[in-house]
Amino acid sequence: MEALKRKIKEEGIVLSETVLKVDSFLNHQVDPALMEAVGEEFVRRFARSGATKVLTLETSGIAPALMTALKLGVPMVFARKKASVLTDTGEYRVQVHSFTKRETNDVRIQKRFLSPDDKVLIIDDFLANGEAALGLVRLVEQAGATVAGIGFVIEKSFQSGATRIRETGYPVESLVRITRLLPEISFKE
Amino acid sequence: MEALKRKIKEEGIVLSETVLKVDSFLNHQVDPALMEAVGEEFVRRFARSGATKVLTLETSGIAPALMTALKLGVPMVFARKKASVLTDTGEYRVQVHSFTKRETNDVRIQKRFLSPDDKVLIIDDFLANGEAALGLVRLVEQAGATVAGIGFVIEKSFQSGATRIRETGYPVESLVRITRLLPEISFKE
Repeated sequence: MEALKRKIKEEGIVLSETVLKVDSFLNHQVDPALMEAVGEEFVRRFARSGATKVLTLETSGIAPALMTALKLGVPMVFARKKASVLTDTGEYRVQVHSFTKRETNDVRIQKRFLSPDDKVLIIDDFLANGEAALGLVRLVEQAGATVAGIGFVIEKSFQSGATRIRETGYPVESLVRITRLLPEISFKE
Repeated sequence: MEALKRKIKEEGIVLSETVLKVDSFLNHQVDPALMEAVGEEFVRRFARSGATKVLTLETSGIAPALMTALKLGVPMVFARKKASVLTDTGEYRVQVHSFTKRETNDVRIQKRFLSPDDKVLIIDDFLANGEAALGLVRLVEQAGATVAGIGFVIEKSFQSGATRIRETGYPVESLVRITRLLPEISFKE
């Protein structure tokens, strides 16, 4: 996705061999027009998935997931990292470790928002170690629903998640795949 | 906004005299088409605001804020409740108390995403006690930027925020205003 590559080259900040900061258009400030294009591209790539729902994890996955769901015409659900004080019904729950934030969170979703009939398209901002997306896969499987596909805005192909997530056997699409960050950001063609 | 009233009547769950749960279309599962309509309505109501940026607070404000920013053609920024481990530059920071979650958070935004030239439209999902929105107002003021307006998807007019937020003197728009939750949900006409 050329517009996204260009944005990463122009505004991405490389902090180390593994850390890319894109908080000017994805993780803190968000570029809505780019997110709309991201949503359209996910819809194109998962055109035959028959997705009935888009699932992501708060917070940074919400923008691309919402735009994808809008273009697909289906609801979006974001899994939560904290129990809501308003929660009154059962929930599916898995543990997810974040290497970036150095913490393990219970990730949860209300049972009534995932049914065995659902075909779930999982969308997240980054594929690094794959922990978050694999947690979402387990949530979908807990619900007895089907994983329709897994989409990432940015894949860091040199980290372990790229292999781990494809070993699930589900369809995986990354809008850009980065092969290294230093000495300069390089993309897989 | 009639579509929103209808959705609240059909799917809102009243848990007490002050607590309305709308997690089937706004706070956990999100209705993207409704959020698009919400964005269009905010743009209509703030048509003359000259907003250069939309600001919200993670997590539930992101969907309506993103759609508003998309329709306005400006960036969206979400303030964060946690320090990013990737943060490397200065930030504006205020304390915000959440009565619903019974906790006080530092709410922060990177300085480079708010400049004195910005006219900031603040968007949030709920107006209850007004703590979150007043925190965002203080962030904008810290940056020396201008508050172009403050918009809420749902206002609970019987709580203190409705008065407190209007006392700021900034333009305030709530897409629906709820006057009471029990014995049934009633709207201000």
